[in-house]
Amino acid sequence: MEIIAFGEHLFYKQSQPNAEEIKTLLEGDHKFWLNVTETKDSALLQELSEVFDIHSMALNDIKEKRQRPKIEEYNHFILIVVQMLYSKNHGLDIESEQVSIILGKNYVITFQETPFDIFDQIRVRLENPHGRMRKLGTDYFAYALIDAIVDEYYLLLENITDRIEILEDSIISQDRKVRLSEIYHQRKYIQQIKKVIWPTRELLSIWRKLENPLIKKRTSPFINDVYEQTVEIIENLEMQRESITTLVEIFMTDISLKQNEVMKTLTIIATIFIPLTFLAGVYGMNFEFMPELSWKYGYWLTWLVFIGISAIMVFYFKRKKWF
Amino acid sequence: MEIIAFGEHLFYKQSQPNAEEIKTLLEGDHKFWLNVTETKDSALLQELSEVFDIHSMALNDIKEKRQRPKIEEYNHFILIVVQMLYSKNHGLDIESEQVSIILGKNYVITFQETPFDIFDQIRVRLENPHGRMRKLGTDYFAYALIDAIVDEYYLLLENITDRIEILEDSIISQDRKVRLSEIYHQRKYIQQIKKVIWPTRELLSIWRKLENPLIKKRTSPFINDVYEQTVEIIENLEMQRESITTLVEIFMTDISLKQNEVMKTLTIIATIFIPLTFLAGVYGMNFEFMPELSWKYGYWLTWLVFIGISAIMVFYFKRKKWF
Amino acid sequence: MEIIAFGEHLFYKQSQPNAEEIKTLLEGDHKFWLNVTETKDSALLQELSEVFDIHSMALNDIKEKRQRPKIEEYNHFILIVVQMLYSKNHGLDIESEQVSIILGKNYVITFQETPFDIFDQIRVRLENPHGRMRKLGTDYFAYALIDAIVDEYYLLLENITDRIEILEDSIISQDRKVRLSEIYHQRKYIQQIKKVIWPTRELLSIWRKLENPLIKKRTSPFINDVYEQTVEIIENLEMQRESITTLVEIFMTDISLKQNEVMKTLTIIATIFIPLTFLAGVYGMNFEFMPELSWKYGYWLTWLVFIGISAIMVFYFKRKKWF
Amino acid sequence: MEIIAFGEHLFYKQSQPNAEEIKTLLEGDHKFWLNVTETKDSALLQELSEVFDIHSMALNDIKEKRQRPKIEEYNHFILIVVQMLYSKNHGLDIESEQVSIILGKNYVITFQETPFDIFDQIRVRLENPHGRMRKLGTDYFAYALIDAIVDEYYLLLENITDRIEILEDSIISQDRKVRLSEIYHQRKYIQQIKKVIWPTRELLSIWRKLENPLIKKRTSPFINDVYEQTVEIIENLEMQRESITTLVEIFMTDISLKQNEVMKTLTIIATIFIPLTFLAGVYGMNFEFMPELSWKYGYWLTWLVFIGISAIMVFYFKRKKWF
Amino acid sequence: MEIIAFGEHLFYKQSQPNAEEIKTLLEGDHKFWLNVTETKDSALLQELSEVFDIHSMALNDIKEKRQRPKIEEYNHFILIVVQMLYSKNHGLDIESEQVSIILGKNYVITFQETPFDIFDQIRVRLENPHGRMRKLGTDYFAYALIDAIVDEYYLLLENITDRIEILEDSIISQDRKVRLSEIYHQRKYIQQIKKVIWPTRELLSIWRKLENPLIKKRTSPFINDVYEQTVEIIENLEMQRESITTLVEIFMTDISLKQNEVMKTLTIIATIFIPLTFLAGVYGMNFEFMPELSWKYGYWLTWLVFIGISAIMVFYFKRKKWF
Repeated sequence: MEIIAFGEHLFYKQSQPNAEEIKTLLEGDHKFWLNVTETKDSALLQELSEVFDIHSMALNDIKEKRQRPKIEEYNHFILIVVQMLYSKNHGLDIESEQVSIILGKNYVITFQETPFDIFDQIRVRLENPHGRMRKLGTDYFAYALIDAIVDEYYLLLENITDRIEILEDSIISQDRKVRLSEIYHQRKYIQQIKKVIWPTRELLSIWRKLENPLIKKRTSPFINDVYEQTVEIIENLEMQRESITTLVEIFMTDISLKQNEVMKTLTIIATIFIPLTFLAGVYGMNFEFMPELSWKYGYWLTWLVFIGISAIMVFYFKRKKWF
Repeated sequence: MEIIAFGEHLFYKQSQPNAEEIKTLLEGDHKFWLNVTETKDSALLQELSEVFDIHSMALNDIKEKRQRPKIEEYNHFILIVVQMLYSKNHGLDIESEQVSIILGKNYVITFQETPFDIFDQIRVRLENPHGRMRKLGTDYFAYALIDAIVDEYYLLLENITDRIEILEDSIISQDRKVRLSEIYHQRKYIQQIKKVIWPTRELLSIWRKLENPLIKKRTSPFINDVYEQTVEIIENLEMQRESITTLVEIFMTDISLKQNEVMKTLTIIATIFIPLTFLAGVYGMNFEFMPELSWKYGYWLTWLVFIGISAIMVFYFKRKKWF
Repeated sequence: MEIIAFGEHLFYKQSQPNAEEIKTLLEGDHKFWLNVTETKDSALLQELSEVFDIHSMALNDIKEKRQRPKIEEYNHFILIVVQMLYSKNHGLDIESEQVSIILGKNYVITFQETPFDIFDQIRVRLENPHGRMRKLGTDYFAYALIDAIVDEYYLLLENITDRIEILEDSIISQDRKVRLSEIYHQRKYIQQIKKVIWPTRELLSIWRKLENPLIKKRTSPFINDVYEQTVEIIENLEMQRESITTLVEIFMTDISLKQNEVMKTLTIIATIFIPLTFLAGVYGMNFEFMPELSWKYGYWLTWLVFIGISAIMVFYFKRKKWF
Repeated sequence: MEIIAFGEHLFYKQSQPNAEEIKTLLEGDHKFWLNVTETKDSALLQELSEVFDIHSMALNDIKEKRQRPKIEEYNHFILIVVQMLYSKNHGLDIESEQVSIILGKNYVITFQETPFDIFDQIRVRLENPHGRMRKLGTDYFAYALIDAIVDEYYLLLENITDRIEILEDSIISQDRKVRLSEIYHQRKYIQQIKKVIWPTRELLSIWRKLENPLIKKRTSPFINDVYEQTVEIIENLEMQRESITTLVEIFMTDISLKQNEVMKTLTIIATIFIPLTFLAGVYGMNFEFMPELSWKYGYWLTWLVFIGISAIMVFYFKRKKWF
Repeated sequence: MEIIAFGEHLFYKQSQPNAEEIKTLLEGDHKFWLNVTETKDSALLQELSEVFDIHSMALNDIKEKRQRPKIEEYNHFILIVVQMLYSKNHGLDIESEQVSIILGKNYVITFQETPFDIFDQIRVRLENPHGRMRKLGTDYFAYALIDAIVDEYYLLLENITDRIEILEDSIISQDRKVRLSEIYHQRKYIQQIKKVIWPTRELLSIWRKLENPLIKKRTSPFINDVYEQTVEIIENLEMQRESITTLVEIFMTDISLKQNEVMKTLTIIATIFIPLTFLAGVYGMNFEFMPELSWKYGYWLTWLVFIGISAIMVFYFKRKKWF
């Protein structure tokens, strides 16, 4: 737990503040940011909920993990629940972490399980005395948090786009072996991001239309901007999903084409040589009375027949455009 | 049939109440819950419909089974019809049971065919004198019933998610034999739950907007919460449905790939040995005049030809990347 | 043509009434139902259109067959066109018959081509002096007609559901031979019913919102009920359609799996015996100088080679998990 | 260019009217129809645009071909652009021709490239002094033109429905050879008609709601009627499109089934005879020491083995239900 | 950077104007167009943003590349961001270039990276003293720019349509070899254009409804026209996308049909000759006691059997309609 009080001319940071200190700030004029990382500590959450008068439904939302992103108006604050997404194991897994934001008159409280880098960036930006964050209200601060989280989605999107391009190259060039499971995983990632970004987009859309004294008009172009970013991400995910569908289709068609080629090879060889082998077998029979066997040119005639049959077959396959 | 009268300081339970007792309660100040399990007893239903002045259309809805979940306003009560879903035979079948709820000014009547565990939970919660259920109105009680029913859907969803993950592992690892019927059944279950949850979501959406003196403002955040749970379940079902589609596709592609491999093996072996067998057959012919047969190195030359043809074939297949 | 005048204390039936009789009834106080089966008799229709002052557009709609179900308000009546669906040839064909209903202040006129059983039921219900039909207005009567028609759709739906379940069993158990045309026909039936029920649902949705003195408030719960029945039928048809899609997919996958098995059998047998046959062919050649032929254990050595090659092949296939 | 002035008691026709004559009519009381077929004659169009005060944007729409059907209100007239569709080369091609209609207070101007039959019908109907066309206003006349055009779409729809039914019979009966290109062309036609009919439906939907002094209330049931015709055509096209999809699916499944059968035949014959041929080959070898060869019943024993192996194979295939 | 001041009687062009000159124009009465190509020159953009008082969010949108097309109202100007699309490498790649347009009271500023031909056309049209561009306001000028950009999309659409038609011919005629990657690329291009044109359509839809003093009523028919063009392009893209889907399907079916034919050929030849070869092998065996070998007509009888078996097989295949 860390508290940062800030204003146009103020920047004050403190770790592990006690309830009294928070109350003093709450009743003061300064804006402050309370970042809570101990979301499993029920006693602490209970204490905070009393200090800030947090409704029990809101507290439940903060405690429960993997909630659908949403925005909810309460009497004297707005609760925003979003999901932080980041890739783990070199892009092989997507992990999500819930971030709950309470936006009050002169405070923003964030609840998170583990400290992220992006919150460090926010801290750095807060230290800059000329930044917008110091001048504008708490709603701008909440926007900045969500903006940072949505920016992370772009990284995941890029990751997926890159991998699909590699898959595309592999399939079209027919060079490398394509692992089907790879395609399946990319599809799953797209699904996972979509599951989070759709309600986030919805949340921002609601925010845009919110008539609440906590939301100033000044921040609306910023919210519009993040909103459009979510729309763009969704459109891109949709495009990638379609690309995958097309790739699978091409992959399937390609397998069929190759199978066709394999079968043609077998058929050409087999249909030429099987009749010939039969004929050779005939003259390998040991009947006592087989007049051809004693013909002088029997053997050469047989070869003529062999060549003749082959030629007819080749001509037939040529006309069928099999090779 | 069981009746429970309750209030902030009251908890009173009675089995098989008669019409007189119910009427006394109805005209009294206390809230009460009447749970009817004898929904096939037409006479009883008729009697109740007279006591509570239930419209004939509402009575029909209660009697008929497997109705589409819905909410309907009547003069002095609200009728809610929902479907309880639970899995039977170790998750191999999904059964549904209709629960009709009549929400009146100071009473809630529930109609069900068989006693469920979840109703026991409600009973336990009612016994707690400090619970919300005792303090808040009948609309909160109706909410609690629906919330309990929707919670059961989560169990089914988890069951399906688990089974699909097993299917996924089987297909991607190619280890175990995948039963197509299993995929088919999971799809059916998703369909069955969707068929119930879509109208339930609709019902809750209507409830949210209902302007009815029986619905107090206080309960609206709770209704919002169940509503969002239904939305989440629907999204998850949709995701699972997509997963299945992808899995079937991968399964099909995998079959094609294996078929391809089988065909290649056959083609390679057959195209190499069929011509050779033909040649061996030729020199197995019994013509009297076959000059090669008496050549000194005829046999060894033939082997050279055998090896040469094989080598050319292998080289050809290598270039085609068949192995 | 048959006319039935009815009221709370009246039930009067007459076949082939003439224009004068109809006019007298029309100007009287009693409600009456005029059922016209001679829809091809233009002269009669013309006469009726003059008696009831039917707009020429409405008359056209009545005359033309296979119209899209619709509801249209005219000055002094409402025209409802619906389609009666029933199965013929033991469920192998779906036939449709148009029923046009004109709902006036104190009369309902129905136009149909052939007499149906369901109209007999209506007649029977009318004879009951305590039935709702006798007490409520002409709008309730029109509702009852449509309700009877929609009930028939349920029969068709059940028929389809049964047949699809049989198909399902056949495909999953792989026992019986599945006829593709059967799947195709079930799909066609679903399409046919949907084509009729969608506009019927629309029609009822319009009726619900109609502000017309001919429609009393009292009948609105009844209309709501039929409307919901149509929604339910549509949902069920959609589910059946999805089931068919899944079944076809499973059927296709099953064919592929079987093909795979067939190919493996062929490949295993062929790749084992083709090389062996070649070898046998080699020692069947008649070259004069083939040293192996005179070896004492040549024959047994060859058998050793035969067995060795087979063993290697079998081992290879085992490792590939082909059997 | 042809002008027809008409009224309840008037019918007057003139070819190639000059500007003066048109102006006189324009300022007169009579309704008139000006049919322009010289849409490539820019000078003429310019002249007309001055006489009727046509906005340059409207003139552009008239000149340009293959426009999206639309309706646009201008100061003193309404511009309607529709597409006439007709089949050419015995239903093998669908051609479209643009018809622009300008609906003014007492005039209707139509612009078309080539004279159609349907415009002759209109002319004939105009000659009938008792027809509605003579009595009602110019908006009814515009309706009649569009109605005639939409009626032509029905012909195309029937054409497609017929051909798809033939395809259906061919595929299900497996009698005739199905040409894939035929399926492809039917799909294209459906697309082409849909591309024209969707905006036409939209146009009529706008017309229905148009509040413009040029549109009288009296014509609204007629417009409703054409509108519903377009809806019906769209629904039918959709059904046909679905039928084609199902047919292609059945066709594909059928190919797979046949392939399966072919492969089974091959596999059965090959797996039975290949091992036998090997065995025959073994005893065709010329080793000097092959004890079996001199057994008295060696030959008959071999036949026993042949028959034994075949019987085992046949039994195996029977159990696998391959035939 | 180039500035063109224009009015009904004015046309004045200047390269690289300085801030003072721009300010003078800005405060003057004349309309002017400032075309900025140095969008990477931050200092210049900063200077311009001060001269024209451009909001920092708008400046960001101008600087960032590949933005989603959009329209945004600011205090004293409207920002429009669109994407110019053109094909490169003979239609093998689609490149996009962002064009940002600032529409002010008496000025239009365009920001682009590279000079396009279409802007030269605009310049030429501006030089024409009788053109609409000189007479109408800056909103008409902005419309003309977007119209020119949308016109370019048509070229791309035509390009795609042509290529798909070639693909279609190749697939249906089965003449040329179809490259799957070609199909894939056409799909990608369609996706790319759709990604740009959907938001452009949205943008124009917003523009149509915009109530802003900068937008005069006079230009609304023009905006309507571009809007409809975008709708038409979208519809055409959708049609092309569907065509591709159908083509791929036909392609797949065609492969299956060919495979079927190949397999039939193999099966016919193999099933006829494999049993015969076996029989020939039997009589090639060297058993000492094979009575048939010494029959006088043994050889000819064997040929009879050969021909008999073949005839039966051919008859069987004929009946199965395999050839």
